[in-house]
Amino acid sequence: MTRRPAISVIGDASLIPDSEKYVFARTLGCSLVENGYRIITGGLGGVMEAASAGAHASPHYREGDVIGMLPGADPNEANQYVDIALATGIDHARNFIVANSDAVIAIGGGAGTLSELSYAWVMHRLILAYECPHPGPDAGQFSDWSGIVAGKRLDDKIRYPEIPEDRIYGIRTADEALLLLKTLLPRYVHRPMRAGKR
Amino acid sequence: MTRRPAISVIGDASLIPDSEKYVFARTLGCSLVENGYRIITGGLGGVMEAASAGAHASPHYREGDVIGMLPGADPNEANQYVDIALATGIDHARNFIVANSDAVIAIGGGAGTLSELSYAWVMHRLILAYECPHPGPDAGQFSDWSGIVAGKRLDDKIRYPEIPEDRIYGIRTADEALLLLKTLLPRYVHRPMRAGKR
Amino acid sequence: MTRRPAISVIGDASLIPDSEKYVFARTLGCSLVENGYRIITGGLGGVMEAASAGAHASPHYREGDVIGMLPGADPNEANQYVDIALATGIDHARNFIVANSDAVIAIGGGAGTLSELSYAWVMHRLILAYECPHPGPDAGQFSDWSGIVAGKRLDDKIRYPEIPEDRIYGIRTADEALLLLKTLLPRYVHRPMRAGKR
Amino acid sequence: MTRRPAISVIGDASLIPDSEKYVFARTLGCSLVENGYRIITGGLGGVMEAASAGAHASPHYREGDVIGMLPGADPNEANQYVDIALATGIDHARNFIVANSDAVIAIGGGAGTLSELSYAWVMHRLILAYECPHPGPDAGQFSDWSGIVAGKRLDDKIRYPEIPEDRIYGIRTADEALLLLKTLLPRYVHRPMRAGKR
Repeated sequence: MTRRPAISVIGDASLIPDSEKYVFARTLGCSLVENGYRIITGGLGGVMEAASAGAHASPHYREGDVIGMLPGADPNEANQYVDIALATGIDHARNFIVANSDAVIAIGGGAGTLSELSYAWVMHRLILAYECPHPGPDAGQFSDWSGIVAGKRLDDKIRYPEIPEDRIYGIRTADEALLLLKTLLPRYVHRPMRAGKR
Repeated sequence: MTRRPAISVIGDASLIPDSEKYVFARTLGCSLVENGYRIITGGLGGVMEAASAGAHASPHYREGDVIGMLPGADPNEANQYVDIALATGIDHARNFIVANSDAVIAIGGGAGTLSELSYAWVMHRLILAYECPHPGPDAGQFSDWSGIVAGKRLDDKIRYPEIPEDRIYGIRTADEALLLLKTLLPRYVHRPMRAGKR
Repeated sequence: MTRRPAISVIGDASLIPDSEKYVFARTLGCSLVENGYRIITGGLGGVMEAASAGAHASPHYREGDVIGMLPGADPNEANQYVDIALATGIDHARNFIVANSDAVIAIGGGAGTLSELSYAWVMHRLILAYECPHPGPDAGQFSDWSGIVAGKRLDDKIRYPEIPEDRIYGIRTADEALLLLKTLLPRYVHRPMRAGKR
Repeated sequence: MTRRPAISVIGDASLIPDSEKYVFARTLGCSLVENGYRIITGGLGGVMEAASAGAHASPHYREGDVIGMLPGADPNEANQYVDIALATGIDHARNFIVANSDAVIAIGGGAGTLSELSYAWVMHRLILAYECPHPGPDAGQFSDWSGIVAGKRLDDKIRYPEIPEDRIYGIRTADEALLLLKTLLPRYVHRPMRAGKR
């Protein structure tokens, strides 16, 4: 038996409905389920809810396709589209677990999302990042982290010598995301490195 | 939509196939899925594998019913019956997350299982514990923790004033487990308490 | 340079002042510092506070000898005798960290303490447990876990083949604790085992 | 009694001795201890070791001023300048704890450091970031995160309405760091926010 890959969808925890990022997250959630992937989110609002709602909207959706890794200890804090609510109880430290899935896709996001992107990079995960066409003005601060890191590497470590183009791959459409997952996931056979002296 | 409850099945990490505990874990995994529950385990061997194999054996099994919360960072360490492998990467600290599910059922178990039982008690979870008819000799140490704690309370805190009989409920058959879940789960609406000053 | 060992003192989170357990925790905290050890606690009340207050009362106390590993994210939740307040923010999952010190001494305790004892056993730590002369009546439940586990092993794993008497060592006085630490700590050169398939 | 603040020093896990960043980390560690602060690091090499060595070099250094929060479960993995080795055992998830100190100072750093910076921002901590005069060429990727985030905000959340200039404060000298700590720490009375629905 081969497990179906589980893809973490991360990003802004609150979004204006029908904004570009909301629509993309919803479309992506639908496409992922359509193509046989499960999705993992942090179980709350914004991108997490939009992607989960999208998953439910797919005609191929099967109950159990949407996993929510909650920061709190109460499974009932999950948004209504979470099929499997895992109450970690370890607050933001759960971001490490969200990042340890088969691949991570970021849509916008602030500092919380950035912690997940950093962890995914450290843990040698395949990472895709949405480049929103109109992310909004940047008023003297970072915001929309998926757009900032798209196409970049988060540090100078060689994660995969056999993948010289390794980076955070920018995406503009759900189709691009699906194509990259199909092509790259088999090559990202991660060999997780533990922190510490070696 | 009502989420299907997820029940953590915990216990010995290695078991002799066809031993009483193995057979019970397998039967229980099957019955849980049969009755609409998902199961959560630590994703490894022994009770974790037996319960997961049992879930797969049910005619009502649907792919996605078996969740494995792994200690390591590699989803591929999961046993073959895990549908959804969550690589926590936080080693034994993942026991806290396993204990934070909708209810916990223990089958035998050593110190690792005991940490999960303790956490489930602290977090106000419904707990069932298998009383194995022939747990084997106790050679001057604790072992088979489910049998030891069955029928007991783990400390003198009043967890649920409205449930005076609150305790770790002993079970001897899967049917007993199912009956208790059906009766008690609606009453165990946990109000998780955070540690610390209040 | 040799690091001074740090000993975790764990147990009831609330205690009647001048009760046997309170007095023992205070005396033990004082003796540990007197003999060059640091103490680690969970940073809150009861045994944690009594041991920390005792440390401060020693004429050999040096600021920095008392470490509090708090469950919350606010260092200011620590009791007044904590010199170094580490705000873990991971709630009860911090018990795993408290248990990963050089040795663990339990004084009474409920389910939270039991989770720490279990972890210390799993992680191959040296463990001492106070046998309170008058622990109070056991009204149909477990309580006073240090007394229950004193002299026992928490499961049947052979943790140290070269220490056949390995167990949770019962203690009745601070002097006994100090003697055991001096004798045994050099022999408990732990080789922590990670959870998971090997 | 007032606890002495503990400042986390984070950054590159390996450094060329006598490089600008190494020298700065060493000088900063010395100055922090000189001015009554403790330091917390991740307990390993590079910036962590340099800052710890600097602390030891201060004439005001007192044993106990240097805390190492290790990713592994073995206290003996700490570098030789760590006085208090806390073996978290939760791998990179310990970055969340490192970030939950009284203030965080970053020196260079890759993705691991970035996860700590992100967490410190999320948890409303005071953050300083070293602007290295010659950080080296950026060969098509991010590196030297302290320089990138210096003077910026990590997202658009208003963390402290009463501190409109709130941001990651850039520093070029240890004296600047000390001055900012003295001035700002009293104003950053963090009110940690938990993740999740409210």
